[in-house]
Amino acid sequence: MVQPLRVALAGLGVVGGGVVKLLDANRALIERRAGRPIEIVAVSARDRHRDRGVDLSRFDWADDAGSLAARDDVDVVVELVGGADGPALTLARATLARGKAFVTANKAMVAHHGIELARAAEAAGAAFKYEAAVAGGIPVIKGLREGAAANEIGRVYGILNGTCNYILTTMEAAGRDFAGVLAEAQALGYAEADPSFDIDGVDAAHKLAILASLAFGTTLDFASVAIAGIRPILAADIAEAAALGYRVRLVGLAEAGPKGLLQRVHPCLVPQDHPLAHVQGSMNAVVAEGNFVGRLFFEGRGAGEGPTASAVVADLIDIARREYGAPFAMPVDSLDERAPAPRGERRGRAYLRFTVADRPGVLAELAAAMRDAGVSIASLIQRGAAADGSVLVAMVTHECAERCVTDALARLEGSQSLAGKPLLMHILDV
Amino acid sequence: MVQPLRVALAGLGVVGGGVVKLLDANRALIERRAGRPIEIVAVSARDRHRDRGVDLSRFDWADDAGSLAARDDVDVVVELVGGADGPALTLARATLARGKAFVTANKAMVAHHGIELARAAEAAGAAFKYEAAVAGGIPVIKGLREGAAANEIGRVYGILNGTCNYILTTMEAAGRDFAGVLAEAQALGYAEADPSFDIDGVDAAHKLAILASLAFGTTLDFASVAIAGIRPILAADIAEAAALGYRVRLVGLAEAGPKGLLQRVHPCLVPQDHPLAHVQGSMNAVVAEGNFVGRLFFEGRGAGEGPTASAVVADLIDIARREYGAPFAMPVDSLDERAPAPRGERRGRAYLRFTVADRPGVLAELAAAMRDAGVSIASLIQRGAAADGSVLVAMVTHECAERCVTDALARLEGSQSLAGKPLLMHILDV
Repeated sequence: MVQPLRVALAGLGVVGGGVVKLLDANRALIERRAGRPIEIVAVSARDRHRDRGVDLSRFDWADDAGSLAARDDVDVVVELVGGADGPALTLARATLARGKAFVTANKAMVAHHGIELARAAEAAGAAFKYEAAVAGGIPVIKGLREGAAANEIGRVYGILNGTCNYILTTMEAAGRDFAGVLAEAQALGYAEADPSFDIDGVDAAHKLAILASLAFGTTLDFASVAIAGIRPILAADIAEAAALGYRVRLVGLAEAGPKGLLQRVHPCLVPQDHPLAHVQGSMNAVVAEGNFVGRLFFEGRGAGEGPTASAVVADLIDIARREYGAPFAMPVDSLDERAPAPRGERRGRAYLRFTVADRPGVLAELAAAMRDAGVSIASLIQRGAAADGSVLVAMVTHECAERCVTDALARLEGSQSLAGKPLLMHILDV
Repeated sequence: MVQPLRVALAGLGVVGGGVVKLLDANRALIERRAGRPIEIVAVSARDRHRDRGVDLSRFDWADDAGSLAARDDVDVVVELVGGADGPALTLARATLARGKAFVTANKAMVAHHGIELARAAEAAGAAFKYEAAVAGGIPVIKGLREGAAANEIGRVYGILNGTCNYILTTMEAAGRDFAGVLAEAQALGYAEADPSFDIDGVDAAHKLAILASLAFGTTLDFASVAIAGIRPILAADIAEAAALGYRVRLVGLAEAGPKGLLQRVHPCLVPQDHPLAHVQGSMNAVVAEGNFVGRLFFEGRGAGEGPTASAVVADLIDIARREYGAPFAMPVDSLDERAPAPRGERRGRAYLRFTVADRPGVLAELAAAMRDAGVSIASLIQRGAAADGSVLVAMVTHECAERCVTDALARLEGSQSLAGKPLLMHILDV
């Protein structure tokens, strides 16, 4: 008789419920593929009585998630509680300390504590897997850890937050401004009541730090990710970008350069013929550039009950098959400590948008600041005054060191000509 | 001390040379990722003296590839000889019979003999891996076997032959006809001197049969793949498709329906907003539709030295890490024998193009054949006569059983109104 893989599930929100449903719906198929049954034996959540649309009476109930790690009848603990620290981290540590396998969808915890947990997994010879933490149902952790493992990766980048991509592509399709689309997304349940984690880029930054570690063989360095979100983007920016042949996407990008590691999450102009430009709605996508394979592109659903459960159970199947190893693709001691690349030395092109007062001399002031900072303007559009009398000036620079652009913006800081904070977006070079 | 993974390489063509180059170029990184060095110890090829641009003097030379399997200092044999049978198959059998791991890029052999080899691998507890056999550098074998393993897959389909996609997208961009583009592709080395294996769809069919087995948990059934190639496609077809909102791609599609398994390789009309419509040049792409994950899309380079070597070495890294298992995702005895779906019962829309004589009554004859076969016409375009006096009539049908369309074509067979064989392309329903 083959032994089932016995699972304890901590957290019964959308994803936890999805895991229960998936293991029910695809039970026979999963047993064939995994070589043995995968069975939930115990669950834990805050509220025992909430109706989750699945029968939980079959499973032991634990009021304390931490107790799951101690059960002799559990081989794997699946953590879907969330939070970088707190109960999730306690559970992770306790599970690995007992030599049990640990599976999580918790990007914040992996980004902050992944190396510590990988070390614990290594010491115990236990599996630590987190496919669902990045890009939901897309097997991109596996794609980097294994599929592209033969390659030196130059860059990894992508659309890592579905809420932002939904908002940006809805703004693009409808010509609407940020605030209204966000409010609608919240009403539809596509954005959280407190959306800052998504729209300010933090969620994407967690995922990017994880991808960078896998791609470059470096330790996790979430603190070095430069982060900008999508709040300042106007419908007009998207329209100007389109006129120039680009679409606006929130791109997480990590690049291994000779001077260090660049990691940033930033709204970007993406050329219209680039695969990322075709990623619509709440989809996610990741590009990895390898020195032998060239450009690999993965696209799929980055969040939600089904896709996230798909990734969690894929991890469980790997564990049931005993096909797993170093969580960050190599033993922790083999990971490099790579310094962050010095800010500003990277060369690239940028999109700049200024909201200016409608009076003489403003354009001369902008142009002078660019000139003095050594930034050459490739194209510039000024549109007539809006109802409030403000005027938009959008420009695209020629390639230059990024610090020149920030220098130009610094020169304009406090200028009476500017009616608001300028917007800087990088242009994705391909 | 960790033991290196010791590799014997049979076949030193483009891909074999690429594997040697990759293992040289990324040696240190691969050792970190694999946890131990991967070292070629012996090689074999037809011609010992051809310059391959890599130093082979480091390796033992075997005149007889078959002898590689018998060497005590070899853990894995990599077969890059090609051919469904013959020396490649002999080597595969000999390697697995001795309990050694076997890696191949040989789609023809896997499509024809994969189940036999998987059984041999199972009996010996040895690895049998073939990531490079489908879609080159894209980790799509891994994506189906592992990444999407939690899902029941409804369909798997994609662009599986780079030569065909290069020809079709060049025809599309330049408005040129098939023959000229093929001749140019041959001159540039993008197409073989004898291109039939690629352009008649056989190569894509090998790959499709492999994907279908992985996706549906069925035994390989290459013989049941319905195959049509791209020779009959005119620049005019591509232009008509574009006018209707589609692009023409050679699509391999496998679908698990209640009545059996559909597998076919066929030129298709793909909606312009579908990811496959954006796949340009010699790129490959695969879509898998899972019941929980939704649509997964993978794109990358499907052939060539670097991408194929990347996939071969990814397999070697999996073996070095001891992360491998059942070659077709489950033990051979767990695979279903699924009957082919009865031809013609599937419902769909189709594009039909007729080259007709320019005289009265022709259109009436076409329309009557459609009516009598129960095919309803959704749109029809007739363009004025070409220099040779022939006229093109292109139409798109409403959804109907596919046998109705083939019935309509049968009714027109031998008609004096037709100046050539009509072209049928399916429309990809999404």
